[in-house]
Amino acid sequence: MRTVEWDNERDRVLLIDQRLLPGEVMVRSYDSYQDVALAITDMVVRGAPAIGATAAFGLALAALRSSAQTVQALREELKRAADALMSSRPTAVNLKWALNRMLRIAEECNGDVDVDLLREAILAEAQQIADEDVEINQRMARYGVKFIEDGDTLIHHCNTGALAAVDWGTALGVIRMAHKMGKRFHVLVDETRPRLQGARLTAWELSQYGISYDVISDNSAGYFLQTGIVQKVFFGADRVAANGDVANKIGTYMLSIAAVDNLVPVYCVVPTSTIDLKLTGGDQIPIEERPQEEVLELKFYDRKTTPPGATARNPAFDITPHRLITAFITENGVVYPPFERNLANAVKDLRE
Amino acid sequence: MRTVEWDNERDRVLLIDQRLLPGEVMVRSYDSYQDVALAITDMVVRGAPAIGATAAFGLALAALRSSAQTVQALREELKRAADALMSSRPTAVNLKWALNRMLRIAEECNGDVDVDLLREAILAEAQQIADEDVEINQRMARYGVKFIEDGDTLIHHCNTGALAAVDWGTALGVIRMAHKMGKRFHVLVDETRPRLQGARLTAWELSQYGISYDVISDNSAGYFLQTGIVQKVFFGADRVAANGDVANKIGTYMLSIAAVDNLVPVYCVVPTSTIDLKLTGGDQIPIEERPQEEVLELKFYDRKTTPPGATARNPAFDITPHRLITAFITENGVVYPPFERNLANAVKDLRE
Repeated sequence: MRTVEWDNERDRVLLIDQRLLPGEVMVRSYDSYQDVALAITDMVVRGAPAIGATAAFGLALAALRSSAQTVQALREELKRAADALMSSRPTAVNLKWALNRMLRIAEECNGDVDVDLLREAILAEAQQIADEDVEINQRMARYGVKFIEDGDTLIHHCNTGALAAVDWGTALGVIRMAHKMGKRFHVLVDETRPRLQGARLTAWELSQYGISYDVISDNSAGYFLQTGIVQKVFFGADRVAANGDVANKIGTYMLSIAAVDNLVPVYCVVPTSTIDLKLTGGDQIPIEERPQEEVLELKFYDRKTTPPGATARNPAFDITPHRLITAFITENGVVYPPFERNLANAVKDLRE
Repeated sequence: MRTVEWDNERDRVLLIDQRLLPGEVMVRSYDSYQDVALAITDMVVRGAPAIGATAAFGLALAALRSSAQTVQALREELKRAADALMSSRPTAVNLKWALNRMLRIAEECNGDVDVDLLREAILAEAQQIADEDVEINQRMARYGVKFIEDGDTLIHHCNTGALAAVDWGTALGVIRMAHKMGKRFHVLVDETRPRLQGARLTAWELSQYGISYDVISDNSAGYFLQTGIVQKVFFGADRVAANGDVANKIGTYMLSIAAVDNLVPVYCVVPTSTIDLKLTGGDQIPIEERPQEEVLELKFYDRKTTPPGATARNPAFDITPHRLITAFITENGVVYPPFERNLANAVKDLRE
């Protein structure tokens, strides 16, 4: 199944609970948009494209469950539901992008139309967002695959695979496509503290695809870059500003700066829905700080790691300045500097 | 008690088992140098100054337990024991420094002397290394304390406190001294994957001293440096080359480069016994790669993090190029660039 799916038989949202992976593959079902919003906050589902599609299906749930008798009444309910879904996580712009696209269907709809037709149109739009995501991922992968060569060792941060999207993936989608084309290479998987999406999810996906990998602690990426064995660094993004500054999973900045210090190219793989042209720089991107428990709740050799009363800070993302990015790989092609002009063009391509 | 101590009543080595901290404070006793070497390899004790003193006591055990009847025979046995202790861990030069200092006692001893007198001299030298370590730490702390100001937020990597030395500590010793002098500041504690010496040991020490801190994931140091809330970065070292290149716990390089990218000064606090003038650069320092299990053996919310069959790479140290170090704080004063000349002078001071 896909990471996020609509259950046609019972009209509900299905999500693979990513908190339980790799130990357990459990599919949870959601009947209300409020529960979907909570699932996003609690990271049952994560990854910018995946939460975009999940929020879209959440809004479809709101439409289907609503008792509104008029288009106007349904529009109002959808706006409230969109607000709740929008506030489930702040950093990834795909959430906003998907919800705005959904709301546009309601706004552009003639007020006299049968409200059930609008409900159907809303669900169809969510389904299309999900379907397009897979197709867009594969287009990115075809553009990005040329950057992976036989014999390469890559460093990959966080999880950007099928689990971070509806299916296929962004940065890991490029890696997967290269493997499918028969290229032979090795991936160093940043474990990606605190929630360990690399160790838990990326390692799991790579082992299923049969791609050679080793898990590494995030802080050892610099060592491998220094030794000269790494040819490229790959990651996704939660939001890219107009100037090319990248908000991505915490640790992306330190990885990028170490790569650049060792003249290793840095590729950021994103659908254009992740590019927020309204923000001129990364300093305008809201950075989520998550519960400190995610840092403290850890066992090493079955022993709790921190002393009683320990406190923690837990920013979930950081900003990688555009000067550290070699290129963006999007579904509309590879984007090189100057990013301000070229990212805008890449986004425009899609909207034409 | 001290991190490493000689048990005068029963002539054996006592070590706090740091693998069990902070959950359990257990003191283990060692009766043979072979077991002491194993304790160093297994990281019952860690931290460059601490393993130097432990190895010295290990050699004292070898002397006391030996049945050698002549100075010559004892010398031979000590050399074998020193070889075993030397190979317990490769990166920290303090091990070599302490063992060489111990062997010198045997070498410089008149061959006609009573072999038991040599045994006593050997034990006395180990005790002196341990006692000096505490005194040297406090001298470093007095030099370093001027770099910590009221209102500062510091980032500290790994554990460099009382547990990393015989007592007191190196970088954390500076921090401890500043607190003792009444300065008010906050420490962001790098958790320091994979063995989490920051989360387990530094957080524990800081909470005992009553110093304000938060644990952070290593990969989030860059975020805090970018936000401008961090004034200084502190760490110790396992070996410093003549040019100032620093071998220290994995992650030090990435932390340093992120600090320098944000114009935050980087202080490396080391006794001169950690400076290896025989090596011209960091590329000559052997980097230990430890068992992959240390990366893989982790539980997040009580669930195993990696999938079955996962493999890992686990370099325990990295090299921070001297260009990233603002100053070294040693027991002979603060050493600024040019490091090649000034480190040599700092080491010479001690030996005069």
